[in-house]
Amino acid sequence: MEGIRLIEVKEEIQADNTAKAEALRNRLRKHKTCLLNLMSSPGAGKTTVILKTIEALRNGLRISVIEADIDSMVDAEKIAQAGITAVQLRTGGFCHLDASMVEKGLEGLDLASLDLVIIENVGNLVCPAEFDTGAIKNAMILSVPEGDDKPLKYPLMFTVCDVLLINKIDYLGIADFDVHAVRERVVRLNPGITIFEISSKTGEGIGEWTQWLQRAVDEVRFS
Amino acid sequence: MEGIRLIEVKEEIQADNTAKAEALRNRLRKHKTCLLNLMSSPGAGKTTVILKTIEALRNGLRISVIEADIDSMVDAEKIAQAGITAVQLRTGGFCHLDASMVEKGLEGLDLASLDLVIIENVGNLVCPAEFDTGAIKNAMILSVPEGDDKPLKYPLMFTVCDVLLINKIDYLGIADFDVHAVRERVVRLNPGITIFEISSKTGEGIGEWTQWLQRAVDEVRFS
Repeated sequence: MEGIRLIEVKEEIQADNTAKAEALRNRLRKHKTCLLNLMSSPGAGKTTVILKTIEALRNGLRISVIEADIDSMVDAEKIAQAGITAVQLRTGGFCHLDASMVEKGLEGLDLASLDLVIIENVGNLVCPAEFDTGAIKNAMILSVPEGDDKPLKYPLMFTVCDVLLINKIDYLGIADFDVHAVRERVVRLNPGITIFEISSKTGEGIGEWTQWLQRAVDEVRFS
Repeated sequence: MEGIRLIEVKEEIQADNTAKAEALRNRLRKHKTCLLNLMSSPGAGKTTVILKTIEALRNGLRISVIEADIDSMVDAEKIAQAGITAVQLRTGGFCHLDASMVEKGLEGLDLASLDLVIIENVGNLVCPAEFDTGAIKNAMILSVPEGDDKPLKYPLMFTVCDVLLINKIDYLGIADFDVHAVRERVVRLNPGITIFEISSKTGEGIGEWTQWLQRAVDEVRFS
């Protein structure tokens, strides 16, 4: 399974996004497919984390990726090069995905033959946090060079996620970033969140994160 | 002049944002006040660049700052600590500023006694590019750790700006970032753009950038 599909999406204003998201989640559970929504700022390392995650889990799981970009297909091309099917959603001016857009992306995939679909959302800490995509798990990446004040400035994003990946920890010591302060700020916003410190570059923490994700997928597969 | 004013703003859907922005620009020119709109991803270094810019220009210019944040006042507090008046616009769920919001921010300032007002827009490479704020100059920061593919993925932002500051150049060599490729991609999108390579940490390039800004302010003051 590889290659890129390109879909142009337009946002429909929809008060019923939450209902659509709920319906989509039910459909995914029926197919025993876990959908992970991955969010972050631009440049925090979403694509590289996805590639590392695929590398760790591809022997045991059937995986596809939905790439959301305003323009360009550079991320989808990287995924396809790894031999994984990537659906490219071109979002035009829109700065987030909603459940309808994700549904459109899933049309290109055979859910019955997939264990895990990863959505790479638009790089943005604001709007993606406000729209339920229908994902079963929500994860975000905060990268060390972005600074440790992000939970103070974008609290909703940290609140809606099941997992926070603190990425680029190989920059600790170079960047002014207090991991302890971040953990404290995040847990105050979201006591149930799981936090992993990772580096896509050195591979540190990737094992712990992908074990967590494997368990999340298994919960859906064997439920 | 120092302290923080807090204003809660709500977006009104407005087809006439462009007209409002144009009217605001005319008003600013009448008062001989230059308005700079500074945009970037979260964590690219907007607040630090503003602090360095204030440091370089405060002897010759009367400066205020409008801080846009979804939540928190941490940036406004840093500006106020430097002895500069900061207006804090709390944007709630909104992910960008438009001309009406900026107008509301300016209500708290005496334009006649200001040479330069700097807007720190919401950290976001998508929506802020789509809304004319009424600013006389638009600038953006791209920081080295974000990666050199950003012009491919967020082309509009690079197209609407007069200036690009490539920040955190002290990370060159550590991060995988091709300055030449970025320059080429950006100039292809926007041949008229001025590009500075800077580091708020080491101070490199700050002189060239603030000289450019001084000239832009002088154009407005002495027109």
